[in-house]
Amino acid sequence: MTAAQFGSLWSAIEQLGRSKRTGGYRRFAWTQVDAELREWFAAECALRGLDLIEDRMGNQWGWSGDPDGAPGRGIVTGSHLDSVPDGGAFDGPLGVVSAFAAIDRLRARGWTPARPIGVVNFVDEEGARFGIACAGSRVITGAIAADRARSLTDTDGISMADAMRAAGRDPERIGRDPEALRRIGAFVELHIEQGRGLIHLHRPIAVGSHIWPHGRWRIDFPGEANHAGTTSLGDRHDAMLGYARTVLAARAAAQTHGCLATMAKVAVQPNGVNAIPSTVTGWLDCRGAEPEAVRAAVAHITTVAADSDATVTNESWTDATRFDDGLVVRLRKVLDDAPRLGTGAGHDAGILASAGIPSAMLFVRNPTGVSHSPQEWTDLDDCLAGVEALTSVLMDLTVDRS
Amino acid sequence: MTAAQFGSLWSAIEQLGRSKRTGGYRRFAWTQVDAELREWFAAECALRGLDLIEDRMGNQWGWSGDPDGAPGRGIVTGSHLDSVPDGGAFDGPLGVVSAFAAIDRLRARGWTPARPIGVVNFVDEEGARFGIACAGSRVITGAIAADRARSLTDTDGISMADAMRAAGRDPERIGRDPEALRRIGAFVELHIEQGRGLIHLHRPIAVGSHIWPHGRWRIDFPGEANHAGTTSLGDRHDAMLGYARTVLAARAAAQTHGCLATMAKVAVQPNGVNAIPSTVTGWLDCRGAEPEAVRAAVAHITTVAADSDATVTNESWTDATRFDDGLVVRLRKVLDDAPRLGTGAGHDAGILASAGIPSAMLFVRNPTGVSHSPQEWTDLDDCLAGVEALTSVLMDLTVDRS
Repeated sequence: MTAAQFGSLWSAIEQLGRSKRTGGYRRFAWTQVDAELREWFAAECALRGLDLIEDRMGNQWGWSGDPDGAPGRGIVTGSHLDSVPDGGAFDGPLGVVSAFAAIDRLRARGWTPARPIGVVNFVDEEGARFGIACAGSRVITGAIAADRARSLTDTDGISMADAMRAAGRDPERIGRDPEALRRIGAFVELHIEQGRGLIHLHRPIAVGSHIWPHGRWRIDFPGEANHAGTTSLGDRHDAMLGYARTVLAARAAAQTHGCLATMAKVAVQPNGVNAIPSTVTGWLDCRGAEPEAVRAAVAHITTVAADSDATVTNESWTDATRFDDGLVVRLRKVLDDAPRLGTGAGHDAGILASAGIPSAMLFVRNPTGVSHSPQEWTDLDDCLAGVEALTSVLMDLTVDRS
Repeated sequence: MTAAQFGSLWSAIEQLGRSKRTGGYRRFAWTQVDAELREWFAAECALRGLDLIEDRMGNQWGWSGDPDGAPGRGIVTGSHLDSVPDGGAFDGPLGVVSAFAAIDRLRARGWTPARPIGVVNFVDEEGARFGIACAGSRVITGAIAADRARSLTDTDGISMADAMRAAGRDPERIGRDPEALRRIGAFVELHIEQGRGLIHLHRPIAVGSHIWPHGRWRIDFPGEANHAGTTSLGDRHDAMLGYARTVLAARAAAQTHGCLATMAKVAVQPNGVNAIPSTVTGWLDCRGAEPEAVRAAVAHITTVAADSDATVTNESWTDATRFDDGLVVRLRKVLDDAPRLGTGAGHDAGILASAGIPSAMLFVRNPTGVSHSPQEWTDLDDCLAGVEALTSVLMDLTVDRS
């Protein structure tokens, strides 16, 4: 894999869904941009002679070799192509591009894998549109019921079912897909690191060992709409005040309990300069290495919110996920004793691991630690080191041991 | 004026721009709904044989008699038809409907006015779309420069100039309009009270005596976009925290200084559940009976915002406005010594008064004090009392004193 080869793969999608104003990406599930990214994925599979299978949820799988020969024969790599609002270029796409690049590298070396190899593009990993992260892997593993997924709505009130229909898919088909899962002997997801771990370790690549427990909560603060210029302070029921107190309580609780708590999304009704808010809805994201710390922080934040008569609704919760111990050990061995890293970010690899599929991750160094931002970056040398690592891992997992 | 006559005038616009979901109104300047309201206004003028004049800013004036005969001969009443987001039915439209009803009442009585009478519909009073309240009266009086008005943008980035063009108006024409102003001998705006003053006074009608000084400030909090699940608390620069501290500081400063301060509108970038905000923009509305109190509160709030590196920009400031003393005295006399009331809300009558045009207001009792809300209400009896009061005022101001 030369820099030029990697660059040419990369540049094909570099402008898709990119905001001219912010430089960030807006690649949301089942939109026009999403369709273009899926077409690109399908075309790259076709170029390499990979057989494209779309599972019941619309995740795309490109297979080299016949994965239906015997259960669990295939080795899968890949990631996702969607983004958060104004996200970066690497979170997701680096794993997909590196998967294709690794396959090219294997073939350039004349390698004959003893098992089928698959490249996957999981749909709707960020949950930016419908609020549930990893919707693609959650649905096919049954971690979320099909009915619930179909009825999720975006901020325009469009349901996932309607969005899929508009994209030419049949939402009635979605649900657990044991056939798609049975093909996977192991899944290795390569991903940009979303922190500074590898900077401190002076290493380009780490093996992901576990994902922190994490959850999302919606907090609805009630108020009474009224004129900001004529309503006395005593007559007000201003929903923004409870929101503000809870934002600060979330930060304090995270500090106290040693975890992360973030309130980054808010919706205000009616959101007029001189109209006291009748409702403010805030979202809480909370995670940490220890589930007890997360639970204690959320309990404290809930108490503060309840003081303002707010309703706290848990939208998602994912327990800590350990990746497959044997696989982690094997990857580290192949990669010159690469360091282990845990992460606070959720990934499709975590969902598959929770469903009993041997899974692990490779993290590629992030020179600033910044992600979910237009400033997200990976140096080209580290991208190429990632492809090289993934190539070695695929060789090791598809060697003929008969 | 019977209840049925008033009701039939009212019901013609009752559903225009009304949200089925909230029951509130979304009547913003130069939108399709605005165009429908303007058509209704023009049709009501035509029904009564009033000559419709649209001034350089697009404010609509329906004249009975020739107001160009001698400067300051006309007596004008009316208000506005636009609303805040999810506003109520009465704020604005009550003044316009009552103006038409009062003219009908005068004619039913066989009254021959000695001076021309005009009904006005001021455009864009709430400033809900472009951020500047009373844009219609500010532009024609020169309180805001035409260039600045044209370049104001809504949240979709559409400028007022483009919005006017889309509505078939020529934005190059807008500006001071001495011709329109010269016609006005006096302006009396009838308006729903936006507080509980008249409840306490057990009276249906008050005469507006003054408007508090008030202003708006935009506060931009900078941050750094990053992943909420992987960025340590120490590595964060979360714009939401400064915003939350400033919201609470605004309430505390209002309490300390005895004025009103409200932060009711917010815009977050990128506003994703797991993306630390890169910018949060909040708006501060501050007013009070005493300008010193308002200035002291804003100074304190600015200090708190500056602690989070925020930039505070004054978007508008209006000094206290006293309505015309002679006119206020005369109105109170006509109306059985109706009480005087000051108000924290801005009105086009205040802008005209500041431009030296004799102006005053009539306030109609609000049984809950709630306004800028779908719950805004006025009892029919009080609406009819308002029409009766306005009729008496118009008679008094158009009596033949030769």
